[in-house]
Amino acid sequence: MSIEEALATLGPAPRLGYVEGGFDRAALRRREPDLFEALARDPACRGYALCGERVLLAIEGETFSPLFTPAALSSLPVTHSVFLGLDNGAARIAVGVDPASEEALKARDAVKLIDLRSIAIQGLVAPSHLAGLAEAKALLQWHVRHRFCANCGRLTRIAEAGWRRECEGCGAEHFPRTDPVVIMLALRGDRCLLGRGARFPAWSCLAGFVEPGESFEDAVRREVLEEAGIRCGKVSYFRSQPWPFPMSLMIGCFAEALSEELTVDHSELEDARWFSRDEVADMLLNRHPQGLQVPPPVAIAHHILRAFVEETAPVF
Amino acid sequence: MSIEEALATLGPAPRLGYVEGGFDRAALRRREPDLFEALARDPACRGYALCGERVLLAIEGETFSPLFTPAALSSLPVTHSVFLGLDNGAARIAVGVDPASEEALKARDAVKLIDLRSIAIQGLVAPSHLAGLAEAKALLQWHVRHRFCANCGRLTRIAEAGWRRECEGCGAEHFPRTDPVVIMLALRGDRCLLGRGARFPAWSCLAGFVEPGESFEDAVRREVLEEAGIRCGKVSYFRSQPWPFPMSLMIGCFAEALSEELTVDHSELEDARWFSRDEVADMLLNRHPQGLQVPPPVAIAHHILRAFVEETAPVF
Repeated sequence: MSIEEALATLGPAPRLGYVEGGFDRAALRRREPDLFEALARDPACRGYALCGERVLLAIEGETFSPLFTPAALSSLPVTHSVFLGLDNGAARIAVGVDPASEEALKARDAVKLIDLRSIAIQGLVAPSHLAGLAEAKALLQWHVRHRFCANCGRLTRIAEAGWRRECEGCGAEHFPRTDPVVIMLALRGDRCLLGRGARFPAWSCLAGFVEPGESFEDAVRREVLEEAGIRCGKVSYFRSQPWPFPMSLMIGCFAEALSEELTVDHSELEDARWFSRDEVADMLLNRHPQGLQVPPPVAIAHHILRAFVEETAPVF
Repeated sequence: MSIEEALATLGPAPRLGYVEGGFDRAALRRREPDLFEALARDPACRGYALCGERVLLAIEGETFSPLFTPAALSSLPVTHSVFLGLDNGAARIAVGVDPASEEALKARDAVKLIDLRSIAIQGLVAPSHLAGLAEAKALLQWHVRHRFCANCGRLTRIAEAGWRRECEGCGAEHFPRTDPVVIMLALRGDRCLLGRGARFPAWSCLAGFVEPGESFEDAVRREVLEEAGIRCGKVSYFRSQPWPFPMSLMIGCFAEALSEELTVDHSELEDARWFSRDEVADMLLNRHPQGLQVPPPVAIAHHILRAFVEETAPVF
């Protein structure tokens, strides 16, 4: 099968996860006094519930819904609540549920408790929920890991409907954290560089956190050099994606590789090598002779690889 | 003067601040035991010294140098040290100096203590130092404000030559924080949207922090809508810049404005309005009839505006 036939088999580009269908965040409402009390009486308000890393889904026959009424949410052992925004005017909130209740929740018949990654990959809820769930997960998890003031060590309290924490001790204000991560496909002629970590079976783009005092173009060059020993020149931006595991922002890029010989950092990668366009097409179609895999469409790496195969990636 | 004459007057594009000339971060060396003791004996090692927000400069006749020998640094009341990387093979470090010694340092004849923003705008050091100073400032300041464990409240200790903090209490590891900020120029036909804050005299691009669970394209659209009431469609990436005030990553973009009528959020902006290409050219040349100003070349907003005037910005 030619690349052109392979592309036809691939069909239209799939949806990138966690991006489309986000709420109007209606930030001004975050400062409304007694917001959650008002929303508890709002018949249009609905919310998500997360227990640690897991999302609570209501079983509705063959399908699942992640949205619950304020009354249903208030029956749970809620540790903290956040205001997510408006969905066509209807308020959306999210609550964190005491992790100690995890086993009790799992035992309930009418609900399912499952991690967000599995929900996204298995398509358990309508794709339009993924952006809201990403917002909920990143924000709720930040609170769990940031209860104390990093400046003075005292217990802080939640403010602005979950968008701030404040310290009575030293007066410091703390805002939710988002960690920028570059994820890039280095290109050399008609081949691209993929790596495979020890923990995941798929071959994927290299990636790494942007460090303080670094542009992300520099972060791309540094990471490819550190992980694979390849020096890069030009860097071209593709698109970005929130990645709430726990609270990253993926910055997808292409990079112009200036060398070919690999020196793999085995503390970071199990392996890395160059792949042809044909081979990546086979991997996207799940028909690689050795069964090599790429990440699923929910991940930006899948879309970066598709752009490479479809030749919409830049030619350096 | 026509736009073309104005462009000729502008001359070649200035250097974007804090970006070029960064060090090889040599991340593997961060785990070397007794690294700072070894560097103290390394004749090629040099370092920056920061006291709170201010940088220590050695006065060398008419010029200034931000680099000191390990011996000179060790004579200061150092609170913490970080390893920045290698400059053509020579080690570069940075130290935080006890803020209580600020007045004593200011009184010394051979040195000058001045904030990084002024150093960049006044060109007090070679431009190649700005990337290293940005790395130093972002990293050192993070330690100052993150001495305690956000997870359990205990005092944490510095690890990996300044690139991590660890908590003996709960075992949590903490990594330097970088806050992604979108900074964007909304375009409508041949005009662009600028705002002016209460604190700064210059007219500039709108900007705001990327929130959890948000792509930066969505963050661009949200911020322009919140601050100016303008709905945006397509978003196009320009370039990025570390902005160590205290530890941001500026993500420069253009946005396609879909409406014109402004509703300014006066809690965020003193004013906002549409500007023509001619008017922005006058501002870049510092000859606007009403004396309106734009940010200096050290800031990415200057470069975004220049791309608009030079018509290298996208046409949506």
